[in-house]
Amino acid sequence: MDYGKSGMEVECWDRFELTLPGPSTGNPFQEVRLSAKFQYKNLVFEPDGFYDGNGTYRIRFMPDRPGVWRYITSSSAAELDGHSGEFVCTPPSEGNHGPVRVKGDYLFAYEDGTRYLPFGTTCYHWTHDGNTELEEMTLQTLRASPFNKVRMCLLPTKDMKPPLQLVFPGTCPEDVDKTRFNPEFFAHLERRIDDLQRLGIEADLVLFHPYDKGYWGVDNMDAETDAFYLRYVIARLASFRNVWWSLCNEYDFNTYKTVADWDRLLQLTQRFDPYQHLRSIHNGTKMYKSSHLYDFSKPWITHQSIQHWDAELTSVWREAVAKPIVIDEISYEGNSSRRWGNISGMELTHRFWEGAARGGFVGHGESFIDRETRAWISSGGKLYGESVERIAFLRKVMEDGPEDLIAGARDGTYRLMYFGRRQPAYAIVDLEEDALHRIELIDAWNMTIAALDGTYRGCCRVELPGKPYIALRIRRL
Amino acid sequence: MDYGKSGMEVECWDRFELTLPGPSTGNPFQEVRLSAKFQYKNLVFEPDGFYDGNGTYRIRFMPDRPGVWRYITSSSAAELDGHSGEFVCTPPSEGNHGPVRVKGDYLFAYEDGTRYLPFGTTCYHWTHDGNTELEEMTLQTLRASPFNKVRMCLLPTKDMKPPLQLVFPGTCPEDVDKTRFNPEFFAHLERRIDDLQRLGIEADLVLFHPYDKGYWGVDNMDAETDAFYLRYVIARLASFRNVWWSLCNEYDFNTYKTVADWDRLLQLTQRFDPYQHLRSIHNGTKMYKSSHLYDFSKPWITHQSIQHWDAELTSVWREAVAKPIVIDEISYEGNSSRRWGNISGMELTHRFWEGAARGGFVGHGESFIDRETRAWISSGGKLYGESVERIAFLRKVMEDGPEDLIAGARDGTYRLMYFGRRQPAYAIVDLEEDALHRIELIDAWNMTIAALDGTYRGCCRVELPGKPYIALRIRRL
Repeated sequence: MDYGKSGMEVECWDRFELTLPGPSTGNPFQEVRLSAKFQYKNLVFEPDGFYDGNGTYRIRFMPDRPGVWRYITSSSAAELDGHSGEFVCTPPSEGNHGPVRVKGDYLFAYEDGTRYLPFGTTCYHWTHDGNTELEEMTLQTLRASPFNKVRMCLLPTKDMKPPLQLVFPGTCPEDVDKTRFNPEFFAHLERRIDDLQRLGIEADLVLFHPYDKGYWGVDNMDAETDAFYLRYVIARLASFRNVWWSLCNEYDFNTYKTVADWDRLLQLTQRFDPYQHLRSIHNGTKMYKSSHLYDFSKPWITHQSIQHWDAELTSVWREAVAKPIVIDEISYEGNSSRRWGNISGMELTHRFWEGAARGGFVGHGESFIDRETRAWISSGGKLYGESVERIAFLRKVMEDGPEDLIAGARDGTYRLMYFGRRQPAYAIVDLEEDALHRIELIDAWNMTIAALDGTYRGCCRVELPGKPYIALRIRRL
Repeated sequence: MDYGKSGMEVECWDRFELTLPGPSTGNPFQEVRLSAKFQYKNLVFEPDGFYDGNGTYRIRFMPDRPGVWRYITSSSAAELDGHSGEFVCTPPSEGNHGPVRVKGDYLFAYEDGTRYLPFGTTCYHWTHDGNTELEEMTLQTLRASPFNKVRMCLLPTKDMKPPLQLVFPGTCPEDVDKTRFNPEFFAHLERRIDDLQRLGIEADLVLFHPYDKGYWGVDNMDAETDAFYLRYVIARLASFRNVWWSLCNEYDFNTYKTVADWDRLLQLTQRFDPYQHLRSIHNGTKMYKSSHLYDFSKPWITHQSIQHWDAELTSVWREAVAKPIVIDEISYEGNSSRRWGNISGMELTHRFWEGAARGGFVGHGESFIDRETRAWISSGGKLYGESVERIAFLRKVMEDGPEDLIAGARDGTYRLMYFGRRQPAYAIVDLEEDALHRIELIDAWNMTIAALDGTYRGCCRVELPGKPYIALRIRRL
């Protein structure tokens, strides 16, 4: 019996889903193995299926090229085994560029080659409150924002009180059953990931974190439970083209796990995910100890997901490891009493520019404690800060620039010179002698771009306004 | 024949000078050795003498305790050998506290125990122009400033054009004679060091630097010439109680010398200087590579003389090496086109506070390029920036605080919490439960101190104005 619809069409990088009835006795989450081989010509993917409760099993698949795909299931349960069928993968529709990949050493691009410049923000638990109105508000806020990536957690923290929907069944710490999963939780999460996808936003899924302190029992699980959870999450979510795997937030604050544990979990992620979504892990260590960052040169790491307050170090990290730099946490705009959440909008804007000009990608967060909605980084809601519109302005500047800013500077075609907190009266700019250049003066804070008169070549002196947060944009004609 | 005045009185830590006529043929700078033993009870110092030109030799000595000191000379020249005499060292007069020493691990104090908080500035070549009016103006500016230390160079740079008085005879690159010294240059320098001393200002003498690029031939001298120069400088200047030895500025930019060379020159300084004035060396390396700092744990280093833009690293440097932290260059206030000389007064003020609150000492410099006098860091003159009065305010705050801020915080008697660029709406302050505390709100930029009503104890919430550059001063009653 084959429940796959024959003749069904699925757009490239969209989700094909095969639903099969199967055994509901015992613990199907643990006892039933299910997967399927999906084949196009001689290309084969073999995603895991998963038990979705109520005797229902699903296998999801993200085809990566148009054509006829055939599949056949394989299972430890006879009634799930040997189902075969096919579907037609159609070309991607407009706006569907596929998953984000690393491009070259330091850049990202969608799989179809379209440029992707990460402008991330963080709403760790925006999907956890069960507050539909707030979640819709968050989506509206994101829609109007410059952000195209959201860091968000799957597991709860000690500050999230029962009753709560978790990845596991049970709504109180006492009755959490870590031998099963909670399909309702996942269905809700999946809807929100799809909502993000429709907004062109990547879901940077934080799979583990150190904030539970044993309350829900989710940051001190044993190796087997970790792997069980990881495999289920990947079976359900890997077919969503906009997911990234962030193995852990502030991994080094989790005292139950070692670097060897993270290596193992990252390698498992690499093995379980047929599509090789972006994979990284995010440090929490006292930020000045940059040497304590996870060794991002390890082969299962696709990009450097960094917490550090100093965007100038982007240059150092680029030199250290030839992978893209994403400073996911650089301190949040706000007025929190906590160190991580109280820089000014001016300061956060500055850090975005500093990182961008050095070939990195800075992430946003906001933590005002006395406004209509609670801290954005925890629950989403509305944004109140002064940085957001400036980040939008920067994104526009970056999008107007070449794909590879640093290469542009090297070959002399494009330069973005950002002076940051400095206030020089003029800059000496060393341009090619045999080419003409246009220079624009950008005020990062006031969001103005003023073209300087005439053209420039050779070694030039450019007068500057002698105030901070100024950049020069130089283009060879 | 004894030219020392019998019955002469010299104040403690002032300068005793014995003048002797001697051979003027050949090259007395190289050919005549001269020193003297100065003895008080069983305490003996043996400073070198030096040739001062025109057949005149001098031996200078800084006695460090009141009483009758006897001396006897020793020389390779018969007419300089065996001169003996005595003088009376009288107690120091008011305001004479002796040379500055390291106190404990991270602090400084004058030799009489009086607290010394370095608030340094930099005027590298203020004594080199031969412009008396400008030099007097610099002294007047210093007198009105909060600064009690000046970094200043002895050797010229490639940008200083002939004719010029140098440490060596000759006023043009072609006729510099590095086998002799120029007494006129030194006499002038010594007058200025004494001028500084009268203002209570330490002369942080930069003995080498990398800025000559071979033009005057003073940054690529051979080991023998380096030692010859070093010994002469120390023979002349070690008896000035306000000198510090800064072996080199931006030593790592000098490509002619290795770390082993600096080790040797620092060890020679240690050997030649009978009084063991403060000794350090100052890095220039790309500032983020803090691991490239000279290894300050080496025994001949008394304090850490650092160039770095990030005052937050003070905590790291304290942890790394238990010696005082002096961030002599942290970027200068100004509008220079050069990276090192164009931060705002607000930014420099912030860095002073950040370093001070972490138990370090930040240095000032100013580099405005379009004002009445040229850049202060090069030639002195006038100060135009916005930081100077704020640094004076900080100095007052520091002087009103305990000698050891960090110990004060540890034992709960005093805390200076500086929030820097952060703008928290409130702070949670964890105070002793059984003691009462007063809290004051300090605005570092606006230079205001406002006492909060009442007293505090235990874990308190303190409302803050939600803007940057705020500190709390907390004192246990």
